[in-house]
Amino acid sequence: MTTQEVADKLVNLCSKGQFEEAMKALYSPGIVSVEAGAPPGQSRESKGIDAVRAKGEWWVANHDVHSVKVEGPLVAGSHFAVTFKLDITFKPEKRRFTMEEVALYKVADGQIVYEEFFYNM
Amino acid sequence: MTTQEVADKLVNLCSKGQFEEAMKALYSPGIVSVEAGAPPGQSRESKGIDAVRAKGEWWVANHDVHSVKVEGPLVAGSHFAVTFKLDITFKPEKRRFTMEEVALYKVADGQIVYEEFFYNM
Repeated sequence: MTTQEVADKLVNLCSKGQFEEAMKALYSPGIVSVEAGAPPGQSRESKGIDAVRAKGEWWVANHDVHSVKVEGPLVAGSHFAVTFKLDITFKPEKRRFTMEEVALYKVADGQIVYEEFFYNM
Repeated sequence: MTTQEVADKLVNLCSKGQFEEAMKALYSPGIVSVEAGAPPGQSRESKGIDAVRAKGEWWVANHDVHSVKVEGPLVAGSHFAVTFKLDITFKPEKRRFTMEEVALYKVADGQIVYEEFFYNM
């Protein structure tokens, strides 16, 4: 798949809330995932599909997604960007909030090998 | 200015090749600028408007811009992304090439305080 095809598929799946399916279909075993910030004592960076899948599973288990809006992609060479606008409830605290972020991806050999999320902490 | 207004102004100026005007109009004195890579012994990161302006002046002095296409912006909260597709000649080597990159920006108090460029080295 080209960068554009990977990007379009990611947008399509995430728009339907199918985050884990997107990961399964598109992520490289060597994926590196970087958050804007991390809890005290933890790393911003997750390396490898097992660590990134674990982060995703934690997220899905702990949030109710009321709506998700994905805009983009903007594609340039092997990189692309999208935005996520989420209306979610963090279940452990029953706290509902909206968040907006820019997500940046790098594609190699038809798979996502790097992702980084940009948002205010 | 809102993030959207800063982003629109950046796209407008850069689409006309007015990179230095964009910097003058929109960049914070404390701007941090991060490249995908750096020459040996140099940093990927430039800090402060003087260093970032010097980098920009070097770039403008050393490249002929045949065309520039700016796509976006995608805006989320205080961040936005655009893509640049450039057809340029590196003047010292008379070498003409195209490059594509995703640029990520952070806005605070109506000014760009952080930029990072994503492209293959």
